[in-house]
Amino acid sequence: MTEYTLDAEQLAAQTWFQSLRDQLCAAFETLEDEGDGDAPAGRFERTAWDRPDSTGAPGGGGVMSVMKGRVFEKVGVNTSTVFGEFAPEFAKSINGADADPRFFATGISLVAHMANPHVPAVHMNTRFLVTTKRWFGGGADLNPALPVAADTADFKTAFKAACDRHGSDYYSRFDRWCDEYFFVPHRNRHRGVGGIFYDHLEGAFAANFAFTQDVGRTLLGVYPEIVRRHMHDPFTDAERIVQLRYRGLYAEFNLVYDRGTTFGLKTGGNVEAILMSLPPLARWD
Amino acid sequence: MTEYTLDAEQLAAQTWFQSLRDQLCAAFETLEDEGDGDAPAGRFERTAWDRPDSTGAPGGGGVMSVMKGRVFEKVGVNTSTVFGEFAPEFAKSINGADADPRFFATGISLVAHMANPHVPAVHMNTRFLVTTKRWFGGGADLNPALPVAADTADFKTAFKAACDRHGSDYYSRFDRWCDEYFFVPHRNRHRGVGGIFYDHLEGAFAANFAFTQDVGRTLLGVYPEIVRRHMHDPFTDAERIVQLRYRGLYAEFNLVYDRGTTFGLKTGGNVEAILMSLPPLARWD
Repeated sequence: MTEYTLDAEQLAAQTWFQSLRDQLCAAFETLEDEGDGDAPAGRFERTAWDRPDSTGAPGGGGVMSVMKGRVFEKVGVNTSTVFGEFAPEFAKSINGADADPRFFATGISLVAHMANPHVPAVHMNTRFLVTTKRWFGGGADLNPALPVAADTADFKTAFKAACDRHGSDYYSRFDRWCDEYFFVPHRNRHRGVGGIFYDHLEGAFAANFAFTQDVGRTLLGVYPEIVRRHMHDPFTDAERIVQLRYRGLYAEFNLVYDRGTTFGLKTGGNVEAILMSLPPLARWD
Repeated sequence: MTEYTLDAEQLAAQTWFQSLRDQLCAAFETLEDEGDGDAPAGRFERTAWDRPDSTGAPGGGGVMSVMKGRVFEKVGVNTSTVFGEFAPEFAKSINGADADPRFFATGISLVAHMANPHVPAVHMNTRFLVTTKRWFGGGADLNPALPVAADTADFKTAFKAACDRHGSDYYSRFDRWCDEYFFVPHRNRHRGVGGIFYDHLEGAFAANFAFTQDVGRTLLGVYPEIVRRHMHDPFTDAERIVQLRYRGLYAEFNLVYDRGTTFGLKTGGNVEAILMSLPPLARWD
């Protein structure tokens, strides 16, 4: 098999996701340096993985960046660039892949579980997909165990501003989509307090790429400020227990409902990278 | 709606499951009395729940018996007796319900997560189902974080003897069925070290009921002996961590693959009773 050659759009998207990863890791390590406690400030460790395609040919791979620190109990910032052919029955369900199963995908996925229960957990994921069609998708949502109205408002205001810079209807659509997606029916509650979720953003590459970059920069701007606001807050054992039980709900959503997780697990994706999202410690009692 | 009246077979099965529940709870409370530590011996707390049927009529209910103790970090012994009509699309998938959606089910479900990582967790579930057909199903499997060959052998030997008392091919079929069912494909490993799993045991009620009773009595005989063997073993922080990570695998199986769990969560069952199986504390790191 010949080497896969990325075209200019694919290369631009991949380059951005890797650059965003580097910026997020640097910002989070700075927060570690500002953290309390005798434990040393955490640092990211990177692990690369390769992916064999369903055809047996090389199918790309990714890099997991994981830090277990004193502010970030566990944070993963994963990037991947994968390509090949979808299995026939799966291809039918994918935008633009029903007649031609070839695909390319590059993206970034961030999940942060925080040591202090007053600091909200966060999730962000953005990606560029290519079949016979090309689109961006992704989102970001805030996941506090102990919600604080000002944090929720600042997070939503930042993403509303990002949306408003790119499409007048983006925020109303993507805010609602987030609420619909991150819902845990069996608990009759949302996983988090909101954010944005978007998919199948097709059409002009430059405009959609700019929006996706803005989503990443917005997370990079707003989330460290929210962390800084609460990372030195005192907390009780009872608040820690509330956080660990909240993480049980988080794990339930990801294992039962999240489409990316269940698809990945059932089709032989990189298990460690897929399950990076699971909390370092969780309670069900 | 008129009250549902159990026939003699239904009443016999329900009575046994409730009696087995009482015997298991008593045996486990005795183990708590023998436990180490300053914490008081645990005692079961019971909580009843009612189930509205999909038709809106009363649909039975159940009782959760949960103990959080010093030997049993968390153990649930749930019984339920439920009846009504399956939703039409679901009825098609159930033995004997395709033409008539009415059903009755009574059963017991036990999951024990233990404080000491040298004491294996255990699962047992047996049930009697009635549609236009009638059958028993269930099983029991041992789930050690730190497997010990003698424990596995004693558990399997006990269930082999129970099987051999009722059908010459039972053990070879039900042992293999257990290995096939309790497998976690994305980890490429079994959830536990084995046991038995059976379903659709139709035909002579008396013989199948006797086998199902024997499965319960076998668990009641063998599991407390394995607990007693290890409950005073010293353990290290590292062994506790191995146990908490193993519980992550246990939660993954139950939330991603277990048919009872995912069906229950997605169709509005009693969430607390369904998720009784989840570990009190688990790690993913």
